[in-house]
Order: sequence, then structure tokens, then C-alpha cells
Amino acid sequence: MRFELTREFLDDLIEIINNEDSKKAFQILEELYAADIAEIYNELNIEQAKYLYLLIDDGEKAADVIAELDDDDRERFLAVLPSDVIAGKFIDHMDSDDAADVIADLPEKKQEEVLQHIKDLEQAGDIVDLLTYDEDTAGGIMAKEYIAVNIKMNLEEAITEIRKQAEELDEVFYVYVVNDDNILQGTLSLKRLLLSKTNRDIKDIHNSNVISVKADMSDEDAAVLADKYDLVALPVVDTIGRLIGLITYDDLVDVMREEAEKDYQMISGITEDVEHSDRVWVLTRARLPWLFIGLLGGIFGAQIIGIFEEVLAKHATMAFFIPLIAAMGGNVGVQSSSIVVQGLANKTLKSESIFKKILKELSVSLINAIVLSSLILLYNLVFSDSYALTFTVSSALFIIIIFASAFGTFVPLALNYLKIDPAMATGPFITTANDIIGLFIYLIIGVALFGIMN
Amino acid sequence: MRFELTREFLDDLIEIINNEDSKKAFQILEELYAADIAEIYNELNIEQAKYLYLLIDDGEKAADVIAELDDDDRERFLAVLPSDVIAGKFIDHMDSDDAADVIADLPEKKQEEVLQHIKDLEQAGDIVDLLTYDEDTAGGIMAKEYIAVNIKMNLEEAITEIRKQAEELDEVFYVYVVNDDNILQGTLSLKRLLLSKTNRDIKDIHNSNVISVKADMSDEDAAVLADKYDLVALPVVDTIGRLIGLITYDDLVDVMREEAEKDYQMISGITEDVEHSDRVWVLTRARLPWLFIGLLGGIFGAQIIGIFEEVLAKHATMAFFIPLIAAMGGNVGVQSSSIVVQGLANKTLKSESIFKKILKELSVSLINAIVLSSLILLYNLVFSDSYALTFTVSSALFIIIIFASAFGTFVPLALNYLKIDPAMATGPFITTANDIIGLFIYLIIGVALFGIMN
Repeated sequence: MRFELTREFLDDLIEIINNEDSKKAFQILEELYAADIAEIYNELNIEQAKYLYLLIDDGEKAADVIAELDDDDRERFLAVLPSDVIAGKFIDHMDSDDAADVIADLPEKKQEEVLQHIKDLEQAGDIVDLLTYDEDTAGGIMAKEYIAVNIKMNLEEAITEIRKQAEELDEVFYVYVVNDDNILQGTLSLKRLLLSKTNRDIKDIHNSNVISVKADMSDEDAAVLADKYDLVALPVVDTIGRLIGLITYDDLVDVMREEAEKDYQMISGITEDVEHSDRVWVLTRARLPWLFIGLLGGIFGAQIIGIFEEVLAKHATMAFFIPLIAAMGGNVGVQSSSIVVQGLANKTLKSESIFKKILKELSVSLINAIVLSSLILLYNLVFSDSYALTFTVSSALFIIIIFASAFGTFVPLALNYLKIDPAMATGPFITTANDIIGLFIYLIIGVALFGIMN
Repeated sequence: MRFELTREFLDDLIEIINNEDSKKAFQILEELYAADIAEIYNELNIEQAKYLYLLIDDGEKAADVIAELDDDDRERFLAVLPSDVIAGKFIDHMDSDDAADVIADLPEKKQEEVLQHIKDLEQAGDIVDLLTYDEDTAGGIMAKEYIAVNIKMNLEEAITEIRKQAEELDEVFYVYVVNDDNILQGTLSLKRLLLSKTNRDIKDIHNSNVISVKADMSDEDAAVLADKYDLVALPVVDTIGRLIGLITYDDLVDVMREEAEKDYQMISGITEDVEHSDRVWVLTRARLPWLFIGLLGGIFGAQIIGIFEEVLAKHATMAFFIPLIAAMGGNVGVQSSSIVVQGLANKTLKSESIFKKILKELSVSLINAIVLSSLILLYNLVFSDSYALTFTVSSALFIIIIFASAFGTFVPLALNYLKIDPAMATGPFITTANDIIGLFIYLIIGVALFGIMN
């Protein structure tokens, strides 16, 4: 039943589309999940995609396909659809959070048009409400669809109410319990609902220990929280505790994945969020700035070496170890900074444990420094005939490892304190900085030791 | 209701434990979630943790605490508990998948002892079954707890059956439908269950389009699948389609997070999986090998430069740009390799699109190479008085960017083809290789151009 997108399948499908064989195309669409159809769209041109799309007669499925598309493809696709089709064909069938995401990406004029074409006024109202939240907050990823029952009900009344509300939902995982003022009181698990007698009161069988978040909490923090407590859904409340929405696991997983991808791209020296794009210039724009930092660093490095030109001309062997010194500073710096960034991202690094963390990092780097500078000392004692060079390389390497580790630990912590994304400090930035500083330390020590020992 | 672990809280708690004030300690435990208690354990010594643990009287909660502990802490903690306490206090109350994980980590002799102490023979049997699966497969993360009803039942019969089975479960999200041979036929959503009349037949109201996985599928692939189709649980079947287990969203999320963390650590030059440890030597062991690769690369680089000693002594300015050349090769290589690794991890990079990907990478690197080598050309035309140096740096940079990008794209693809983790090719390995190759290209070009132009 699982679908695998192959070249053959795609060739067949494109032929079917080109022949406008709507019966066959419809049959294929029937058998596929929305996520599969979205995957196929990525491989079609816009006219082919539009032809297929208009064949989908199941509103739910049509809505899901749109929700599953990459942002890029969605934008191009929506541009060719008229507002009334957008509203009628899928916004009406979408969960409010997905609908709000789709509408938020439209040009302002089209937003208004689409909103006016939505037949379900409650849905239109929900969307307008959701559009007011920042997209990086709990409010920005919550949906207005959830099931809530009053704490004064008994189970029989609650079940009637749940049935009524469930008609509008795709799936039911939790029932929330509220009081007359809509203030969240707890949850009613489906297990309890199935196992309890119908004459029991909700107030006696609900679980009052419910974890909720405020609408302005960052979506990242909400995802970390849901992950910690293994929650499949997270209710969102306003300042006085009224239930206003629900974040479901699929959106929480999306946030987690996006955060992980962003941190990964930062450490790779790629600006976040554009790698899904197909356009070469967009891809280039994502990488060039980081390489430019590297280039500037290299030019700066060249100038530093330039200061020491005379020494290098006299002792050309000093140049031999420049790549080693530069690489080691960079490698150690990336290790330390990435550890800090990961610790901050998954909240295992709390303010009180930061001091402990720094001490531990320093111990690790001390061991690394001792081992690695001893190894290079042995190597040079055997293969080099200059004691000055031998001791320069070893002592510089020792100092640089300690320094790069301290720098790599400190910078992301400082950025985090300044409310700047600490992941900024993991990629080319930290390696470039450590390259230059390492180079300087190496050359200074070299000048000193060659002066003394030769 | 959300818990924040503070220094004050911890100091108070430790005082309570030291005073053996069991009543107060019990009260605190009552108010906390299992995940919070596990978080506190990480900050306590083993005796304090044991004291607290034995106070928890709710078996479910005691089990959850153990399931939430870090592997490291759990191992140390289980070592101080006798086998009958392990079996009686929490294995009996755990879901079979968590129980199997805990038991798998015990020394072999203790495994047998604990298994013999489990009172619920069905649970013991499930655990023994689960222990046969590789821990990196769908079978290795599935649980034996799920709800299944026969397709021949009507809804009323099914509800009776569901009630019976639900008693043993923490939560219910899906009901699976099987035939007489236990072969998976579909799902029954809780929404359908709530909304349908009780005299309807399961065969008419179930959803036969169910996505399942085989037990030997990798856990990573299972997580990608669940994510693609937004599934909160994934049923696991054997070779002939019999339902044998269920993977729930919390385990799928764990797999996703672990994969992301592993790739992040690889690109940082840290061996996976040890960063949660507190021990300095374990942390050192995770990083030193990668630094050692960097050191070897540096020594190799020194030897390459050594070959060109004479040229460098004559034209010391050539040494100026060694750090730039080395850094740029590394940066470009990491960008390209990380893109490929991410594409492979989230399955957006399929075999048929690999050729397209390589072409796109080459276009991007061509633009980067043109821009960056032009910039350094301008810089050197202004600030350098040697045309030989100017053209050496620019042409070497151009070639190195193209080469590093191709190399960074190719190596992870090749590793993946050889069934080796492509993430190996993202961190120090790729930067070190590109450093050395870049250096060699630079010096060769330098020798040629200085020979021709001077």
C-alpha cells in the first residue's frame, strides 16, 4: 500500500495527463495518499499539477495535498488558482491552522479575496484570529479545532457533546475539560471515556493535571515541552487560562525537524530555509555569504602572515605547520560550540549548570591539548632538526586547543544571552575566527622561540 | 503546573532527603510528572536517587521515571537495585517496548534474574519476543500493546473487546482491525467509533487503507514514513502481514531526534551518543579521534608544503594565502556534503534525482567560484605587486571551490551506496581532505605560474 515514486510511474502519469485521460488520472489519484500526491506535484510542471489537482473531488484530500506541498511549490501553485477555487476547493476543508498558513503566504489582495469566498463563517473567523499570532509562537502553530466538554457534565452528556464536535475533526486524541468561563480544567482520556460508566460525572473522572502553554510561548519551547512529557497534543491557553487552541503532534514534529535542520544548516555554513528551493541563484545566495566570511578571514590571515614575512622567509619551515594550526583551532572550536548549541536547543543546558559545563569543556580540552601537542612534539623531535620549530608548534597547538575550546563555548552562550541564535556561532564564523587567532598565536610564539633559540 | 528545576528546589530536596523526611519527599513526588522526577535524578547522587525512588508508590509512575532516565543514569541506577525490585517495581508496569529496552541494557546474568521475577507471564513473554529484534529496526522499537478487533465483529462487540483490551494500555489512539489469522485489515478511527451506530459492522466502517511496516525495516525509515503521512502510530507486521506490534509517536520522535543529533555530532567532529555522559574521559574519547584525523592531515599538509620549501623560501608571499586556500576548500566541502547528507536523511534525495542534484551543486559552485575568485583577484591586483601570486591565488581558489564541491557531493553519495553512514563525510574528514588537496593544487599552480611569470 506504500507508494514509491519511480521514473516509470512518473512517465506514465505525464503521458496520461498529456492525453487528458481524466478517467485514468482520477483512478490513480484515488489510490494515493495526499502526501504522495504532493510528492508527485514536486516533479510536475505547473500546468500538469493544476490539471491533476482539479480532478481531486474529495475536499479533505484536496486540502491535505495543499497542506503537504513544499512552501515553494505551494506558492507557485496558488498563484495560478483563482480565489474562489482556493476558498471553495480546500480552505473550507482545511484545519484552521493549515488554512491560516496557506493564506498567510498569499499576497495581501488575494488574502482578502480568498477570505471573502470562504462559505463557513466560523472557519473564516478562526483563520482571521490565527493570522494575528506570530508564526514562531504556540499561537502561530495552533489550530482552532479541538474537543472540549464542560466539567459540570456527566459522561453521557459529554459523549453527546463529543459526538457533535467530532464531526468537524479529522481525528480525536484528547478531550479537554473546561469550566463555564472556558478556563481549561483538565483532560479526559479516551481510555477513561471508554471504560467509565455513563452516569459518572466528568469532574470525578477527568485528569486535572494538564500541561498547557500560553499562546506567546515560542513554538520551539512548546515542541521541547511536548517532547519531554510525550504529549500527542498541547492545549494553548490565553493569559487567564482560557482554552483557545490546540497544537497537534504533526505540527510539533515539524517544529522539531525545522529547528534541527536550521541548526544543521548553520553549522554547515548555509543560510536556513532555502535548500528546498530548486533555483540555483537561491541556493547560491544561501551559501555565498558564509564563504565570503571565510574569504575575508583568509585575507585577514594573509595580512597577519604578512607582518611576519621576514621571519617566514628566514625560517620557511614555519610555514609548514600553518594548515595544521589553522585546522586544529577550527575543529576544536566547532566541537565545543556545537555541544553548547545542542545543549541550549534541547534545554539540557540550564543557567545553573553552565558553569559546570564550562569547567567540563576545559577539562576535556586540557586532555586533548596534552595528547595532541605531545604527539606533534614527538613527531617533530624525530623528523625536524629545529628545536625552535618543534617547541613552537607544540606549545602553540596546546594554547590554541585550550583557547579555541573556551572561545567555542563562550561565544554561543554569549549570543544566547543576547537573544541571538547561538547556532550562528557554529559554522564558518567560529572556524574563521579560530583560524586567524590561532595563526596569530602560532606566529608570535614562533618569533619569540626562534629569537631565543636560534 | 509546569515544573522548572531550580537550584533552590534542588537544595531543599536534598536537605529533605538527608533528613530522611519521607512524608515531605513523598508529597513532592506526588506533585511531579515522571519526566520531572527523571530530570531531578540526573542532579542527585545514586543514594539520594535510590531513596527517592523507593518512595514512589504508583507503579506506573515508577516505571515512567525509569523509562525517562538517560541511558547512563539508568545503567548506574539499575546496578544498585536488586532484581526483584526491578521486576516488581517497574518492569511489570512498563509498556513492553520500554521494558525490553531496560532489560537489554542489563548484564546478561541480571537479565535472566529479572525476567524470572516478572509476575505477569504475558509481559515476560512479550519482552523475550521483543529482545530478538535488532534495536535499530521497527521491531526493536515497537511495543506489544495495541488494540485490535476482528473484522467480523459489529461495533457493539468491538466496543466490548476494546474496553477489555484498553485496561492494559496507558492511552488509546487507534484501533486496528485484523482477520481470523491476525492479518492486518485496516484501522478504526476513534472518531468513527464515536459517531457510528452500534449495530454497524466493522467491515463497513473500518478504513482499509492502512500504512504498516515490516519488523525488519530500519527505525529511521519507519520514522520518515510516519512523518510523511503524519501518523501518530505505525503498526508493525510480519512477512505475511500479521499484526505483531505498534510503534507510537513518542518512540518515532525519539528516533528522529537521535538521528538529527547524530548527524549534528558527526558534522561537529564528535562521535555520536556520548555527549549525555558526565565523565570527562568519555567526552574526550568522543572528540580526540576526530582531532587526531585533523592532526594527521596537518602533518601530511606540512610534508606537502615541505616538498615546495625552496619555492616558498624564494616567494614567501605564497605562504600568506595558505590559510585562505585551506579554509575555503573545507568550507565549500562541508556545505556540499551536508546538503547531500540532509537530502539522504529525509529521503528527498532519491536515486533518480541524484544526477540532477550533482548538476545543481556544480552550477552553484561555479557561481561561487567565479564570484569569490574574482573578489580575491581584485584584492590582489590592488594590494599585491606580484602577478604570479595574484593569478595563482585566484585560479587555485577557482579550481578548489569546484573540486571541493564535487568531492563533498560525491563522497557521501558513495558512502551511502556502500551502506556506510554518509554523515561520516561531513565533519573533520571532509575538511581535512579538502585542506590537503587544496594545498597541493595551490602549490602546484604556484610553482607553474611563478616559473612562467618570474
